[in-house]
Amino acid sequence: MVLEKEKGETKPMRILLTIAYDGTRYSGWQKQKSPEVLTVEGEVEKALRTLFRNPELECIGASRTDRGVHALGQRAVIDVETTIPPEKIPLAIRPFLPEDIVVTAAREVPGDFHPRYDCVKKTYEYHIYQSPYKNPKERLYSTFVYSPLDLEKMNEGAKAFVGTHDFAAFCAAGSSVSTTVRTIFDCHVEQEGPHIRILVTGDGFLYNMVRILAGTLIAVGQGKIPAEKVAEIIAGKDRRQAGQTAEPQGLTLREIYYDLP
Amino acid sequence: MVLEKEKGETKPMRILLTIAYDGTRYSGWQKQKSPEVLTVEGEVEKALRTLFRNPELECIGASRTDRGVHALGQRAVIDVETTIPPEKIPLAIRPFLPEDIVVTAAREVPGDFHPRYDCVKKTYEYHIYQSPYKNPKERLYSTFVYSPLDLEKMNEGAKAFVGTHDFAAFCAAGSSVSTTVRTIFDCHVEQEGPHIRILVTGDGFLYNMVRILAGTLIAVGQGKIPAEKVAEIIAGKDRRQAGQTAEPQGLTLREIYYDLP
Repeated sequence: MVLEKEKGETKPMRILLTIAYDGTRYSGWQKQKSPEVLTVEGEVEKALRTLFRNPELECIGASRTDRGVHALGQRAVIDVETTIPPEKIPLAIRPFLPEDIVVTAAREVPGDFHPRYDCVKKTYEYHIYQSPYKNPKERLYSTFVYSPLDLEKMNEGAKAFVGTHDFAAFCAAGSSVSTTVRTIFDCHVEQEGPHIRILVTGDGFLYNMVRILAGTLIAVGQGKIPAEKVAEIIAGKDRRQAGQTAEPQGLTLREIYYDLP
Repeated sequence: MVLEKEKGETKPMRILLTIAYDGTRYSGWQKQKSPEVLTVEGEVEKALRTLFRNPELECIGASRTDRGVHALGQRAVIDVETTIPPEKIPLAIRPFLPEDIVVTAAREVPGDFHPRYDCVKKTYEYHIYQSPYKNPKERLYSTFVYSPLDLEKMNEGAKAFVGTHDFAAFCAAGSSVSTTVRTIFDCHVEQEGPHIRILVTGDGFLYNMVRILAGTLIAVGQGKIPAEKVAEIIAGKDRRQAGQTAEPQGLTLREIYYDLP
């Protein structure tokens, strides 16, 4: 794979990658100081350095997914000088990536584009497997709930998240952000047999926010928290009133949206 | 967990277990001569021996699933003398099983019941993930197909399998069985977004039969084999005319049916 040697001038470009991964093996997206710690960013960067023959190359990710969290639409940018057309990068990088990471798309973006600051909205999915017994095939990609869940109540509770609110009650302790106000554009729950999925789209999310939201809606579905109390919990800004932080393996970063031509 | 010591007389019983597993780590269901080889049966037997404190205990499985193949409804019988009520076995055995194997049900059956000979029918599912790019979360539980598949044609081809036929064309070379005649009660294809599932129910299946059937229906969906040719391929009894053997990780043993009161 010596695509760089194809005829044609190299051209400096900023490229936006879309990345899907199974987060099971990884200590999250973000590269750690110790090179011993396996991270998705570390593996992606290593593959990019090999492909572009540039040991200095660094990528900037859009979202710092936690240990065990998955992605279908993570994004990252790189600056490269190459003759490889951006749309060929997904195929060209494949031999250098482990099989649990896939680059699904690549495109050129303006030189001042930033994957975090230019993000317009993001969609996360939280997957619950509801059944009397665990399904071993789903254990790494869902949280297991034994008791039946009331979908109607969960959807009623989900509506309370929509809008611009101070989500201090849905933020892990110890995280330092300038504001805990976020706007949620959509939050709803879908069911297909034993698979229950919470889909939430917002302009940004606090640390553990989707997992606390999921834990709260599970408690609503179980009848432990009344659906009409969710709005109160948000207004109360007290983390202790919200539900538990749902397990990481149920969470998937589905999509990140940008205003790009 | 000293359930055996509960008050009450022990009673010899034949017990039928339902077992779900993620086959990824295993060299198939069946125990191998070398104890180094990890098998589902080996792990289940080890757990049962610990639970029932009987180092001689052996289980008889219903279906010898291959390496990488999964199950939701594998069955096995054991003969035990215990005070544990059968319905409590799924919970009691949990601490002794790895997390990719789950006993989902247990019930007493007559002393002459046999999980293979008494089988009335079985349902297998073959899962295809159809998308322009691989989804890393699905890689261990599906076969990936890049090109769109024509569901209507696949369902037309699937119908040809239904009935009593000599399935010699759908049997891996080198397998020795007294007859290659089997009865298929139902075969159809379902789609939910990128997930395409072939569901097939029959009185029994030849070695690799479902995987060759799946490979053939994928070829039909891709337009490589005309749907109307499937009946001819079955009638021709020539393995070389059927499609490729689809990958093992797409296959799940869904259910085994018995005539039990």
